[in-house]
This record gives sequence, structure tokens and C-alpha cells, in this order.
Amino acid sequence: MAKELTNKEENYSQWYNDLVVKADLAENSAVRGCMVIKPYGYAIWEKMQAALDKMFKDTGHVNAYFPLFIPKSFFTKEASHVQGFAKECAIVTHYRLKTAPDGKSIIVDEDAKLEEELIIRPTSETIIWNTYKNWIQSYRDLPLLINQWANVVRWEMRTRLFLRTAEFLWQEGHTAHATKEEAIEETLKMLDVYTNFSENFLALPVIKGVKTENEKFAGAIDTYCIEALMQDGKALQAGTSHFLGQNFAKAFDVKFLSKESKLDYVWATSWGVTTRMIGALVMAHSDNNGLVLPPKMAPFHVVIIPIYKKPEELTRISEKVIQLKKQLEAKGLSVKYDDRDTHKPGWKFAQYELQGFPVRIAIGPRDLENNTAEIARRDTLEKQVVDFDSLEPIVIKLLDDIQNNIFNKALKFRNDNMFKTDSWDEFKDIVENRGGFVVAHWDGTTETELKIKEETKATIRCIPLNTVLEEGKCIYSGKPSKQRVIFAKGY
Amino acid sequence: MAKELTNKEENYSQWYNDLVVKADLAENSAVRGCMVIKPYGYAIWEKMQAALDKMFKDTGHVNAYFPLFIPKSFFTKEASHVQGFAKECAIVTHYRLKTAPDGKSIIVDEDAKLEEELIIRPTSETIIWNTYKNWIQSYRDLPLLINQWANVVRWEMRTRLFLRTAEFLWQEGHTAHATKEEAIEETLKMLDVYTNFSENFLALPVIKGVKTENEKFAGAIDTYCIEALMQDGKALQAGTSHFLGQNFAKAFDVKFLSKESKLDYVWATSWGVTTRMIGALVMAHSDNNGLVLPPKMAPFHVVIIPIYKKPEELTRISEKVIQLKKQLEAKGLSVKYDDRDTHKPGWKFAQYELQGFPVRIAIGPRDLENNTAEIARRDTLEKQVVDFDSLEPIVIKLLDDIQNNIFNKALKFRNDNMFKTDSWDEFKDIVENRGGFVVAHWDGTTETELKIKEETKATIRCIPLNTVLEEGKCIYSGKPSKQRVIFAKGY
Repeated sequence: MAKELTNKEENYSQWYNDLVVKADLAENSAVRGCMVIKPYGYAIWEKMQAALDKMFKDTGHVNAYFPLFIPKSFFTKEASHVQGFAKECAIVTHYRLKTAPDGKSIIVDEDAKLEEELIIRPTSETIIWNTYKNWIQSYRDLPLLINQWANVVRWEMRTRLFLRTAEFLWQEGHTAHATKEEAIEETLKMLDVYTNFSENFLALPVIKGVKTENEKFAGAIDTYCIEALMQDGKALQAGTSHFLGQNFAKAFDVKFLSKESKLDYVWATSWGVTTRMIGALVMAHSDNNGLVLPPKMAPFHVVIIPIYKKPEELTRISEKVIQLKKQLEAKGLSVKYDDRDTHKPGWKFAQYELQGFPVRIAIGPRDLENNTAEIARRDTLEKQVVDFDSLEPIVIKLLDDIQNNIFNKALKFRNDNMFKTDSWDEFKDIVENRGGFVVAHWDGTTETELKIKEETKATIRCIPLNTVLEEGKCIYSGKPSKQRVIFAKGY
Repeated sequence: MAKELTNKEENYSQWYNDLVVKADLAENSAVRGCMVIKPYGYAIWEKMQAALDKMFKDTGHVNAYFPLFIPKSFFTKEASHVQGFAKECAIVTHYRLKTAPDGKSIIVDEDAKLEEELIIRPTSETIIWNTYKNWIQSYRDLPLLINQWANVVRWEMRTRLFLRTAEFLWQEGHTAHATKEEAIEETLKMLDVYTNFSENFLALPVIKGVKTENEKFAGAIDTYCIEALMQDGKALQAGTSHFLGQNFAKAFDVKFLSKESKLDYVWATSWGVTTRMIGALVMAHSDNNGLVLPPKMAPFHVVIIPIYKKPEELTRISEKVIQLKKQLEAKGLSVKYDDRDTHKPGWKFAQYELQGFPVRIAIGPRDLENNTAEIARRDTLEKQVVDFDSLEPIVIKLLDDIQNNIFNKALKFRNDNMFKTDSWDEFKDIVENRGGFVVAHWDGTTETELKIKEETKATIRCIPLNTVLEEGKCIYSGKPSKQRVIFAKGY
């Protein structure tokens, strides 16, 4: 093995951290809670950005860029918003350093104190709605369908690479509409975009739902979300889409003249996904040999490794490989040919397994004789020797198979770990000993929700959409309930 | 006219600002010195990013992401670096807000003071070299060819949209090499990438050169740059590439074991271009009717405007246009069909002229009869009526012509405004009354450079590369000089 991983059955959390670091995705930086996203990890983020950005544009959105800084006073304008974010923000108070009286050290220049402190954006509703006020006068200016790719900062006390970091990268959509109906439609449309992205690109099945009052975004009327199940039985929120009603329009006095010449507040949505999705991708699919990446998210689809003793063997292998590489690249595939003589084939095999290259092709002296190659798939680790000339169609089909297989495996896992129960004892047993999604009745009160959380650490992940309503009794209080909700321990 | 612009011959500075705002590129935000990049302006930035990112990758670079925050102590490790940046940085001192004793206002929680202040990155050499220390042990780990797309903050006191803002967007390349020669080669390679980008994408001719000691980057051995001439005769630095020597490796103790098993400090480069290029693009090519965009940087290549009185005319025009749009899009062009009935054709003509759409096609009832269309080019404002069926090849050729024409026009302007002189009186006269690049001898001392700046406001833009050495006498001091340098007032 190139680098030893902790076994995931022994210590899932350590396995995850090992994997992120050893597969060169990210590492902790010298700044508390902030990570460095390394080139291989960033290449995955670029894949995510490209796919999402296309989906946003296909649904009529455009990108823009708003300031990193938010004046403190903006924060206070939406009451629940400041409550949600004030406790974890980075605050800029000064704008100059100077040399200390000792002539050596550098200190903050107290003469350069800002009149009003600036908050590093934890999310941009306030600065954006303050801007929209000048952009919106009439229904003709609506809808505004704007997205921003940016970094944000939330001063988390306990951080984990990708899953929870003080600074992270994300996109945040902020739309403005003339009617409530249109804003709700947009909220759900973007939830569908996220669902499509998650299932068809990340190969990650998700449950669409709405958050409870207690779990919703600070400033939203309704927070919709997609929830995925990780291999340790914990849930991970992979994206959120908020119907903000007129809350921010009221906070920033954004009114428009309707077609009927009435003045009304503008309706809003916001929606976002973050670099956390890289963590979800790692946690959902990987194994004890390393990353397993769905081909659509893999920086490279194929690695080709030559096996040789004599230099003339390498020459002959390289001739064939360079041709093959061109052929595959012409089909839109990303191919790496690792002909370095500084590392042995065994080391390379382990390294690319660790980094989750979906397909590996190895060519040795016997393959030269027989005009064959060994092709291996990362998801199942299966290998076969095939005719060299048939590699192109085989690789293309294999990548498709791998993408589907990874999704189906995750879907089976999710379905196998979804438990419907009406017994509180069983509920507790599942949450404590098995993990997974528990589908149970709830009386709809925050009081019960918090008590269940206190006793079991399970939270309501969401009230699922598209489910059959069903009369029942709350798993905890026994009070009447009209619908089952999804419980789990979460990230 | 849709929106009145100031005449650029009357007030160039106001013309520029009007244009940026009225063409919907950007506006000042509520945060001092920070701009909002509006969707149309951001779409130009996306074009720039796409072209540059491809060039970086084609030259072997990969992207990564490093923290927004830099611990204050990192800053002090490279002496000239801190001198260069300490005076203009945003400083994070606290990480929490709280409700004030009055129960209403929100204040900084003094209990949440950071042990060490964090600086918002003005540039990332320090945090990156602190990270590289762990990534580099041997020559096998070199070179590192990494780029970052990010926001940075420099607390500028006098700001102008795109040209000088407190927060701006950029890319910063940071590479690490085993030898001095290789690092210098990289520095010059990236200068060539920027030159290629500037001339072939922005249609902006540039002079490649090296900065004087006084003007170089804080922490560099040599700063290479590309300098462009704006229409008001002022120079604009459009990109820089720094040979950093071993300065940052020494500051952060980054050593490597060479092939010969010797321990040595690593050699470094850094290079960057910013959203300032959008300002350069506007200033270099635009006119009193609005933006003139080179097609390669235009968010849309073509706008099509229907001219009609009766609804059935619009129906017939739309049928033809939708077909044409598909045809052009299949050729990779970006086409807008503006069939809104809320605005008149005249208003639309002015609006798309203002926003610099390179090609406009208008179709009216007579065109329907004759199977023709009116095609207009933005750069020269020329119009012609052409056969509808020949539009595709005509548009494609026209876009090519426009790209070349804009470049050639800017090149002619630059050449016409490049003055070689050996007379100090003429030098002063040119700088004060004509503007442009003044090519003159200089004695090589900072003293003379600063005196010239004091007396004329002209700075040495660069010591040009690829010029013939020529003995002469300094324009100011009369001391011997071996090469002419480029003077100008700058942005």
C-alpha cells in the first residue's frame, strides 16, 4: 500500500480524515478551522462547479459578485437572521498595521479603527437585498435570478475537513419575485436541480423534504433540503433551498410596483450548496482502499500504467498508449499516463486506488505480445484482460456502469437502512445501535423534537415531500400525527 | 439614447464611471471601496477566467484553494513584504457579536478577541509558502505549479470601479522550483501567457518589461509586467509576474534535497491578473456610444432585434430568427433575441450599443419581403443590408474582423502615442499636454526616478524587454544610460 488508511469499520471518523488527507484532497491549514483544498480536491470542486453552473444557467440564472464584507448594522435588520449568525462570525475592526514602538514587531494601528465593524459574510442575504433595493422598482425588473460563487466564513468551534470549516466555498442563489407563488416555485425548482445533481452526478440518492421550524434557516419562512445517508448511518444535509417570503424585502424596504400599479414587498428565495459535498462524496462511496469516485466527478477517468523491465518495452508500450490516450481524450475522457520511473507499478496501483481513479489500464510485456491490456474498475476492484483494440468502447461502457453501480449501491444501502417504526424502544435502539433513517410519527411540536434530540441525539432531518400522508401517533408523545418524518443522527 | 453618457473628450474619468455603471458592469456597494460586479460585468469576468484557466492548465498548472486569513505573524516574516502591505489591510480581531446591555443593538463581544489577529489576504505568498513547507522535501516534489482564483483585500483609500477597489477578484499563481533558471523561465512563461491573453483575447497591445527596484512587488527579486495604453494617454499595468528568488523559501524555511543530495532553499514565482482587466477593456476600446467589446470577451456575440407593427409580422420574423439563432449557436456563438414588446427598437439599438454587443441584426417587414436583414457592427457602427440566407458566414467573418480591427486600432493608437525623446523640456511637455508612452533614457537610480515622478507625475512603467540596447544620457540627470525605458502617467 502507498499509504495506510484506518479501517472504516474500526473508526469511521478517523478513516474519513485519513482518506481526505492521504488522497490529497485537503488538509488543515495554519489558520484555526480553515482548510487548504489541495489540487486533487479542488479538481473535484471544479467538476461540481461546472455541472452546477450549467444547470443554473440552463434554468435562467446569471452570476454576479457581491462584497465579502457586511456592515454590522445590516445584520441586525432581520431579527432571526442576526440571532442565527451573530455567534459565529469573523469581525473586521481595523484597516492598518504599524510597526510597534520596539521597532520590530508589527501591531494593529489603533488609529485605524473602523467606524462601523464589518462582518465577513456568513451568507449574503443582507448585503444582496440592500443592493436589490436599488435594482427593483417595478414588476418589469422581476424576476432577478442571480447566483454567486464565493467564500464564506462561519466561526465554527469544532471543525472537520470539508464537513464543517470556518471558511468554506459555496454558491448562493438569491432570487427576487413578484409573487409568492413564483418564489415558492423557484425554491422547489432549485431543490430539484440539487436533487438531480446529487443523484446523477454525485451518485448520491437523497430524500427531499422541508425542515422543521427549529431547524430552518435563520430568516426563512421554509427551508427545503436534500438529505443523504452516509456509510456510518448518519445523515448529511447536502443542499438547502429557502423560501424567504418577504422577510428580507421588509428588512431592507424593497418594494415594487405591480402590473396592477400596487406597491408591494418583493418575494425572495435563496439556495446553496458548499464544498461540504466533497465530504459527502467521500463518505458515501469510499472503502478501505481509498476513494471511490463516480466517473462524472473524477478529475481523471482513466489511469494507464506501463509494466516493463527493459527500456525498449517502455518505448513500445508508450507508443501504443499515446495513441490510446488521444483516442479516449477525443471522446471527452480525461486520461493520465503514469510512466514515471521513480515509482514501481505496485505503488502506482495502490496510489490510484487510494485516489479513486475509476478505471485503471495496465500494459506489460505479455500484453505487448498478445495485443491485450488489463483493465480494472475501482468500484468493484474487478479486473479483466481484454483485446487492446477494443479498449475504447469497453472503457466508455465501463465508466457508465461504474457511475450507475455506485448510485445503485448507495441507494440499496439507503433503502436497507431506512426503518419505519411505531415503537419508542425500537426507535431508541435503532438510533443508538444501528443508525440510518428512522421513519416515525411526530406530533409537530418543537418541544417533542428537542426532547427526542436530547434523549437520543437524533434530529428531524426533514419532513419528506412526495410521501403519502398517514394518520398516526407521535413516537414520543403519543399525540396525533398526520405524517411520518425522517429522524437520524446528523453531520 | 437609452442612457446618456458623459463625452469622453470632455471628462474621460466621468465617461469611464458612467459607462461602467450605465452598461450594467458594476456599481459601488454600501461597503466603502467595495464594488458589486453586476451580471453583465461578471459575464465578462467569466470569459476572462475561462480563457486564462485554459492557458494555465495547458502550461501544466493546477488550481487549489488556500485560506482567506493570514496570521499576522506570517506577514512579518518577509521584511519587505510586510512593508508593502501593512498599510492597507483589513484586520479581523474578534469572532463573535452579542446583544448589547440595552437589549437591542448588536455589539462586538469583547470576550471573543482573537489571540492573534488575522489579516484578510492582500496576496497569498505567506500562507502558501507556509503550506509548501510541508509539501516539499525533495526535488521529486518539484516543481509545484499551482494557481488560485480568489478574492483579496487591499484597503485602498481612493477607489475606482474595477481599477482600484478594496476587494477585488484575481488569480494568483504560486510556483516552486528546484533551480533559479527554472523559476525565471516560469516567470517569463507566464508573462507570455498574459501577453498572449491581453493581445489575442482583450485585443489590447501591451509592452512587456521589468519594473524598477522602486516599483517592484514587495518581496520580489524582479517584477515583470505588461503595460497597456488607455485612450486618455495614461498607462495601465495589466498583469505582473514575479521572480521571487528564495525570499519566501527563506522566510518560511522551505528547503529541499536536490538530486545531488544537497539541501537548498526552493525558488519561487508568483503572478496575477485581476478584475482590473475589465477596467482596461472598457478604457481601451469604448467610445461615446458605450462599450466596444472584442468578440472573444463579449457575453453575447450577436443581438437580433425584430422591427414590426403587426403581431403576424413578429410571428414571421420570429420563425426565421429562431432558426438563425440555432444555426449560429451551433457554431459556438452566443445570441440574444430581444423580442420584448415593452421597449421600442430604437431604445434597444441604443441599449445594445451601450453594452457593446459586437454584432446587431435587425429584421423588419421589408426584410421579410426581400429575405434580407440589416447587419451592424459595433466597432465601426457600419451597417449593411444582406441576404438573410448568407447571414451565418457573414456573422462569423464579421466577428473575426471586429476582433482584429479593435486590436489594430488600439495598436495604432499606442504606436501613434509612443514618443521617443532626448529633451527634458519635450518630455515634460508630452507628459503634461499629450500623454502616451515616453521612451527616454534613465540613469538607473531610484533618486532620479522619484524626482521625475515628483516633477511630472510620470512613473517608469517598465524597462522594456526585447529592445535594442542603446547608449545615451539620462533625460533628467544627464548621466550615462544603456537603455531607454518607458515613462507615463499611470492608473
